[in-house]
Amino acid sequence: MEGKRFFRFLLILFSVALVLLLTWANLPHAPAEAEDLLDCATDAPWCSTTTSSSSSSSRPRKHPPEAAISKPRPGKPDAARSHKSDTPRHPLDPLTVQEINRVRALVLSHALFGDEGSASYALHSIELEEPEKSLVLRWRKGDPLPPRKASVVARVGGLSHVLSVDIGAGSVEKVGEGPPTGYPPMTIEDMTAATWAVFSDAKFNRTVEGRGVELRDLACLPLTAGWYGPTEEGRRLIKVQCFSMEGTANFYMRPIEGLTVLVDLDTKRVIDLIDKGPHIPIPKAANTDYRFSQMDPSQRMNLINPISIEQPKGPSFVVEDGHTVKWANWEFHLKPDARAGVVVSQARVRDPDTGEMRAVMYRGFTSELFVPYMDPTDAWYFKTYMDAGEYGFGLQAMPLDPLNDCPRNAYFMDGVFAAADGKPYVRSNMICIYESYAGDIGWRHSESPITGMGIREVRPKVTLVVRMAASVANYDYIVDWEFQTDGLIRVKVGLSGILMVKGSPYSNLNDVPGQENLYGTILSENIIGVIHDHYITFHLDMDIDGSDNSFVKVDIKKERTSLEESPRRSYLKAVRNVAKTEKDAQVKLKLYDPSEFHVINPNKKTRVGNPVGYKVVPAGTAASLLDLDDPPQRRGAFTNNQIWVTPYNRTEQWAGGFFVCQSQGEDTLAAWSEKDRPIENKDIVVWYTLGFHHIPCQEDFPIMPTVSSSFDLKPVNFFESNPILRVPPNAEKDLPVCKPAASA
Amino acid sequence: MEGKRFFRFLLILFSVALVLLLTWANLPHAPAEAEDLLDCATDAPWCSTTTSSSSSSSRPRKHPPEAAISKPRPGKPDAARSHKSDTPRHPLDPLTVQEINRVRALVLSHALFGDEGSASYALHSIELEEPEKSLVLRWRKGDPLPPRKASVVARVGGLSHVLSVDIGAGSVEKVGEGPPTGYPPMTIEDMTAATWAVFSDAKFNRTVEGRGVELRDLACLPLTAGWYGPTEEGRRLIKVQCFSMEGTANFYMRPIEGLTVLVDLDTKRVIDLIDKGPHIPIPKAANTDYRFSQMDPSQRMNLINPISIEQPKGPSFVVEDGHTVKWANWEFHLKPDARAGVVVSQARVRDPDTGEMRAVMYRGFTSELFVPYMDPTDAWYFKTYMDAGEYGFGLQAMPLDPLNDCPRNAYFMDGVFAAADGKPYVRSNMICIYESYAGDIGWRHSESPITGMGIREVRPKVTLVVRMAASVANYDYIVDWEFQTDGLIRVKVGLSGILMVKGSPYSNLNDVPGQENLYGTILSENIIGVIHDHYITFHLDMDIDGSDNSFVKVDIKKERTSLEESPRRSYLKAVRNVAKTEKDAQVKLKLYDPSEFHVINPNKKTRVGNPVGYKVVPAGTAASLLDLDDPPQRRGAFTNNQIWVTPYNRTEQWAGGFFVCQSQGEDTLAAWSEKDRPIENKDIVVWYTLGFHHIPCQEDFPIMPTVSSSFDLKPVNFFESNPILRVPPNAEKDLPVCKPAASA
Repeated sequence: MEGKRFFRFLLILFSVALVLLLTWANLPHAPAEAEDLLDCATDAPWCSTTTSSSSSSSRPRKHPPEAAISKPRPGKPDAARSHKSDTPRHPLDPLTVQEINRVRALVLSHALFGDEGSASYALHSIELEEPEKSLVLRWRKGDPLPPRKASVVARVGGLSHVLSVDIGAGSVEKVGEGPPTGYPPMTIEDMTAATWAVFSDAKFNRTVEGRGVELRDLACLPLTAGWYGPTEEGRRLIKVQCFSMEGTANFYMRPIEGLTVLVDLDTKRVIDLIDKGPHIPIPKAANTDYRFSQMDPSQRMNLINPISIEQPKGPSFVVEDGHTVKWANWEFHLKPDARAGVVVSQARVRDPDTGEMRAVMYRGFTSELFVPYMDPTDAWYFKTYMDAGEYGFGLQAMPLDPLNDCPRNAYFMDGVFAAADGKPYVRSNMICIYESYAGDIGWRHSESPITGMGIREVRPKVTLVVRMAASVANYDYIVDWEFQTDGLIRVKVGLSGILMVKGSPYSNLNDVPGQENLYGTILSENIIGVIHDHYITFHLDMDIDGSDNSFVKVDIKKERTSLEESPRRSYLKAVRNVAKTEKDAQVKLKLYDPSEFHVINPNKKTRVGNPVGYKVVPAGTAASLLDLDDPPQRRGAFTNNQIWVTPYNRTEQWAGGFFVCQSQGEDTLAAWSEKDRPIENKDIVVWYTLGFHHIPCQEDFPIMPTVSSSFDLKPVNFFESNPILRVPPNAEKDLPVCKPAASA
Repeated sequence: MEGKRFFRFLLILFSVALVLLLTWANLPHAPAEAEDLLDCATDAPWCSTTTSSSSSSSRPRKHPPEAAISKPRPGKPDAARSHKSDTPRHPLDPLTVQEINRVRALVLSHALFGDEGSASYALHSIELEEPEKSLVLRWRKGDPLPPRKASVVARVGGLSHVLSVDIGAGSVEKVGEGPPTGYPPMTIEDMTAATWAVFSDAKFNRTVEGRGVELRDLACLPLTAGWYGPTEEGRRLIKVQCFSMEGTANFYMRPIEGLTVLVDLDTKRVIDLIDKGPHIPIPKAANTDYRFSQMDPSQRMNLINPISIEQPKGPSFVVEDGHTVKWANWEFHLKPDARAGVVVSQARVRDPDTGEMRAVMYRGFTSELFVPYMDPTDAWYFKTYMDAGEYGFGLQAMPLDPLNDCPRNAYFMDGVFAAADGKPYVRSNMICIYESYAGDIGWRHSESPITGMGIREVRPKVTLVVRMAASVANYDYIVDWEFQTDGLIRVKVGLSGILMVKGSPYSNLNDVPGQENLYGTILSENIIGVIHDHYITFHLDMDIDGSDNSFVKVDIKKERTSLEESPRRSYLKAVRNVAKTEKDAQVKLKLYDPSEFHVINPNKKTRVGNPVGYKVVPAGTAASLLDLDDPPQRRGAFTNNQIWVTPYNRTEQWAGGFFVCQSQGEDTLAAWSEKDRPIENKDIVVWYTLGFHHIPCQEDFPIMPTVSSSFDLKPVNFFESNPILRVPPNAEKDLPVCKPAASA
């Protein structure tokens, strides 16, 4: 028995060593040769691109030779592009590799970091500090760039410091400090370190073993703890929960239910361990794996013949200077962002009458996500994630699969981010851009048999899609910015990936005694899909033909008529209400008290006198129903309304606050809006929150078919008339001649 | 002066004769040679297919040789197919040409029609009388068809008669009569006759002339009058309003505002004429035409390179026996319908585990539309259309443009309808079916940097779209039934076409004195786009694994927690409420009191004990806000809720009633539901209403970019797990090799 125990101890030791090794290998850091830039698409397993077992197209794309204008070439993935010599060409271009290296050097020489950078530190973000909006708006191509600056959040000596770095001048200024409550987004190193830390705790190892799971089969996740009162204040905390990956890559379906380890992120020490689930079995591995390569070939289903979007003359867009996208009548600046994922800036659309490019949106991005789970019990109550401010929505955006995440005609854009040590790395293929044609109709009219005029005029609808997909642990968020030639921008969020499930003693609903609340749906034996919500809040700095805009609620109101007046008893009327201050623009959507939501330029009218504008058009959505004083809802108070409007303020970018980890809700959009500042004829920002209630169902097991919802930004009296009136219909002569590849 | 007057009289006479001639030519009737079947795609201008000036592809498609299974061949429009020898092969197949001819002969020999058919008559509909549901469900391919029957609505001697015709037995039985209030849908002949009738009225001609419009430039529309009290009862009425087509094909933008002519549809006599608009100018023609051929070539805009959906191995679906569509894991029966447009029957999906085809929906179709305009003044108050029951949503569905209404890979299905004289005619290319790939994602997961497992699994999303487009005078409705391999059915309605506008003395908003209510938006000089709503109500006879189903409202309710219980103050819980009777299932959607809407089979459970089901998933929609006692809302009372559930009853098909013209609201879904019949574990029908509020904007002028909304029918614990887990990703080797056509 002694021998067996010793052997087991050795095995555990070996497993822990292996896990540590693997995790270390997965950490984002610069490779040994300082000159070789880490390309996540090819060099590191944590970038998730090397071993996609399903895809024949995982070979890295080839970038075209460095060129000011990239004409996307569909179907030809580009070679991994060296970003070592990238230079910024637009005031909003993200920091380049060289700039990040320079920023790192400058920052580490600051007194904060001790003599010769001797203090231990972590850089939580190194981002472009965008120039003042007025400078950017004045800048024209060919002008010198405004001074390039970086904003850096560093943790040194247990404090969060905000530094402003002037890259050209070589100066570093400390401009702020973290608040008493709230911490910056975790670094990838924080996340991985937390999952090591548990192995150093003997009680943890014993507990896992006691649950029948071998340590070598463990996969652990760092789960942000939210904020639930004073006991959790004053230190950076993370909760770690673990799963068995024995027999499946889909370890999420094999939770060691009820086991929660509280870890101090700064000291990497285990603070507390609770196991409320010793009676709950680990669900079985069978039928959980989703990898095509792991499927019995006889089980594979081939439902559809190959299908492809083809453009015989190539795409209709160019990417100029690396970040400026020009397509059809649109032009915008596009960049990856570690926290927001994708940032669309200076979106402008061509006026078909004057030929002028007209401003629509200065800046649009995913500001924050809020994902509360609906189970108040011990291992679940705290799961109320803010995926942008806690995990970095962009940091979690993995390389897109060239033929499956985006169609064959897509162009890919890389992200350049900084690791915790400040060294730059590349996230390849993080964003894709492609033209989509689904067979839909842009506009049409036939004359009916009534007039019999023999008219049939139809125009196909082709759109430009900008996509990223963030995998925040189990869940996958697909964010699309879709541009239409008629001036509409559709922002669409798709949810896929894997559910966060709960282990359960029950394997059938019939076995559940009485009315016991399962907090969700039994998806498979011993697996419950816990009910949860998703809220995705967008920052939309609209600039309709200039920065001074107003927000107008156009209420659709019933008017009653008198008997003398009309045979009708009622009709609907549009009543315009210009929001004077922020509180006028706090909107809860109501089906039976509907409005349109216009952002107008009160200083510019159309030929017939309507103010030019765009409207925010909600589609299907959900509202948060949690108590306003529930701790997660206090932190997620930016979801208290679906629409808010604030005056532009460059410090108000992140709806849940800048330091959102363990925040208490003091620095949210809801707090800013309470100031009730004037917003009429001002530079204003619209905030829209897209919501989902998710009651899981068996179809979501073991991986979820995509569920999507969207909202639109739609021109409303922005153009004098239909801006795509004069586009041609499709003609057979323009379409490609194709044959199956096999016969090529 | 005398000579000039006489000349003018001659000119008018000539114009009237010309209009009469043109209109006559446009009437649907059989051609002189009785053996030649009228094909609306080629033979008659009123079919709108001959002179599409924009499209190089308006040549008639070629059908493949008559075959039991049609393998669609994309890119090769088929030749106009002769339907003369069509035979029914499925109990739900629509009446064939031969059957319609036989029905006509049988009906006209009935005593109702006088000796040897001497009475004047009109056949308002000749439709398949579908066999009892139980017979259809029992029927298997190869079985003899149940007796073929037709349901005929005939007007003879000022009365509406409902006849049941047994085609095989040759018997005709009168089974019903029109109600004291309400008339059948107009025939196309009714509609065109109404627009002639006005010319026979001297006052009308004088008035038009007085408004400065030449009679030869007139285009008139038959506008259903609704019902507004006793003065309008007891006779079939129509209101005719006219437009000037001088200088534009888009006469809708040139209303002779305020001129309304009340016509008796049976006698074709003008009853009343009101002109409230002599002071209102006819808006100008400039910039209203939307035809590509009429545009100055220098004005044309080419924004996009050619783009196409290509399937190198051809489509993945077949159309069996003319009407049964088999694609991927779906199978359904599809047919054109004069009133509903498209009817989808017996939709079944393959269970990936058992291989069995499982029932989802017995029958789904557009049951009624309700389009109230929001202007209570004289020429507008009555505009509260019901496009299916008044105009025939299918009758107005024009041939689709092969490369623009549907992509190149589409397959087209014809409609066979009967004219008012009972003779059959063909509406070519009325429905299209195609596979769509927009570059979207069916499901995906990447492992994030946190675990760094190097997994990236993504599946593209390909769907099957069934489309029709109805042009109900000015407006175009695009109705899509979209099938997904994951079991979801999306029903999407797109609105395009041309607004119904109001002439106005104002050419700029600044000229409008005080707060005068315009009832809409100034779109161009002297043109107001009047506010209106659209409601489209779908009949969804769900049969989830059999006919006996229940409707379950799964309410998402907030639960509060105590301090001892949890650090959380609140969470959301799913509370299932099974609807016992109809009133339990009258649903108004509420963002802050949300529910899921499940149709379940209470007699069948999944492996883990969940009842199998589908849910109705609303997306963006609008609710009617009119007073419940407003006459149009009484008739449109089926829009009082967004969801209703009724027990299956074969007489309850049309949400606004069967005889909907001038109906008073006695025979609507709202009235049936008030019976509060039991619906638990019964054969039930779900009704869903999709709504739009439309405040027009300048972009809608002179033709509207498509606005769409949709709802989903989505499996919820219907499958044991994700039904598309085992489908493959895209691979480069399967995709086509294409080149521009020019270089071919």
